[in-house]
Amino acid sequence: MKAAIIGGGVIGGGWAARFILNGWDVAIVDPAPDAARKVEAILESARRCLPRLYEKTGLPAEGRFIFTSLAEALQDADWIQESLPEKLEIKRAMYAEIEKHGAKDTVIGSSTSYLAPSLLQEGRKYPERFLVTHPFNPVYLLPLVEVVPSPHTKPAAIDLATCIMTKIGMKPLAMKREIDGFIANRLQEAIWREALWMVKDGFATTKEVDDAVRYSFGLRYAIMGPFDTCRMAGGEGGFAHFLSQFGPYLEAPFSKLMDVPTLDDALVKTISDQSDAQSGHLTIHEMERIRDDNLVAILKVVNFMGKD
Amino acid sequence: MKAAIIGGGVIGGGWAARFILNGWDVAIVDPAPDAARKVEAILESARRCLPRLYEKTGLPAEGRFIFTSLAEALQDADWIQESLPEKLEIKRAMYAEIEKHGAKDTVIGSSTSYLAPSLLQEGRKYPERFLVTHPFNPVYLLPLVEVVPSPHTKPAAIDLATCIMTKIGMKPLAMKREIDGFIANRLQEAIWREALWMVKDGFATTKEVDDAVRYSFGLRYAIMGPFDTCRMAGGEGGFAHFLSQFGPYLEAPFSKLMDVPTLDDALVKTISDQSDAQSGHLTIHEMERIRDDNLVAILKVVNFMGKD
Repeated sequence: MKAAIIGGGVIGGGWAARFILNGWDVAIVDPAPDAARKVEAILESARRCLPRLYEKTGLPAEGRFIFTSLAEALQDADWIQESLPEKLEIKRAMYAEIEKHGAKDTVIGSSTSYLAPSLLQEGRKYPERFLVTHPFNPVYLLPLVEVVPSPHTKPAAIDLATCIMTKIGMKPLAMKREIDGFIANRLQEAIWREALWMVKDGFATTKEVDDAVRYSFGLRYAIMGPFDTCRMAGGEGGFAHFLSQFGPYLEAPFSKLMDVPTLDDALVKTISDQSDAQSGHLTIHEMERIRDDNLVAILKVVNFMGKD
Repeated sequence: MKAAIIGGGVIGGGWAARFILNGWDVAIVDPAPDAARKVEAILESARRCLPRLYEKTGLPAEGRFIFTSLAEALQDADWIQESLPEKLEIKRAMYAEIEKHGAKDTVIGSSTSYLAPSLLQEGRKYPERFLVTHPFNPVYLLPLVEVVPSPHTKPAAIDLATCIMTKIGMKPLAMKREIDGFIANRLQEAIWREALWMVKDGFATTKEVDDAVRYSFGLRYAIMGPFDTCRMAGGEGGFAHFLSQFGPYLEAPFSKLMDVPTLDDALVKTISDQSDAQSGHLTIHEMERIRDDNLVAILKVVNFMGKD
């Protein structure tokens, strides 16, 4: 299998490393004079780390990698991953270039962290084989990849993306509808804005914000997201009951960011039903044991070296 | 040493367990008929977990614990931790009751998750020995405790709180100025609101939100907060330069939560200087190695049992 990696920065290099260590051949397209040096450094970091996650099963033999022209990179490519700067015109120009070289059957995944795929694909000849595959830094370690189709993306392209990303050790999250910023970055943006307010208003320094995160809910977020956390806080009394008491709390000014959805019966039911489907197979006590065992394991291994 | 624990719910019970396992005697005040059963269950959970974090040094012999009257609990107490329901009138009535019993020299820490200490202490005879010590669930495992004084709290009370919390294995974060919701919950509120919008607007289910968090920035947040994350994203080019390019991104609608501070020169300098003080002793490459080693260690031990 062969991946064409367009753009060899931190993200493109991370993709290259993940593909190579999972046995794919990789052709990297990046005209910058220091691109090769940067990608080699990222590959070294990945080589140092990723095998430790595969001690039992082992990783396949490394794929080959070359820096090359666009034409050569696209030849026989099974996947095209674009990680260029976040400028619409730069990305669109590259997609046009790719289409000029044919490569009619190859799906293009964009690493954009916030541009909607329907905006990116405007003017494409083959919009049905274009989507967003948004990873997180470091790409060679973090599992999430958001797979975001435009209304023009064909289902087979989504399936292929999901399949390939799973094969290279990632957790694809296929969105049903596109939205600017997708899921994770919308959540990160919210916390980032609030963090900026805290520093601007002088209530906390950057270190205090960071410490507050990593010694509390940051440790929990490595295990479970906000909904499971909230489900557990509700205890055996039930999530819907817990949520229904949340209304006044939501309207209190504990945040600078006050655009709040009304927790009406419909939203409470939606959340409660979805949470049941997500975690209803576990009792709260079982969830607590899973959480605690994971926290112990994490707290035993996390090394805050030089940063306390 | 003896702690008086007022309120034996999930938080009060968690405090009791942490104090007991760290060798403190604990007197719990809670008139609910099932309080003892609940605290015993939390203590069992803590006994199962906390010793594993102290395999090298060991924990001291467990302290004794009793359920008792307020008067007896306060006698010879070295610390009073209040974890009653989040109702101003309930908490204030208890503080008045505590003061009636004398206990003139004992500091009261409130576990409130959002009420400002200057609001809570109104009407106190001894406001100088009152502050907020806000922990996170599970209290026996998560290290953070926000120490929040009112303008009336005497410095010695803050020092005592910080010292005691450190002794029982916590990471106290002493705020200079009080604010509703303190630090961590303001950040959590922001993300919670955005998560509610995602579900309400049908862009993601609760599971998709949770997966997006725990497979991406949730894993990073166990290691480093948003500012160090951002510092690294800036690379060797420097944090201030990176931030100065953030303006337009902040104003883009990637969040429902749009109250955004202006990233003017003053704020960029504040953040940049604070970040230098926080992490300037490490190069970006050193930070990357620390991050990667921690991610590998965490990914090796996290068990997503039954939740994928």
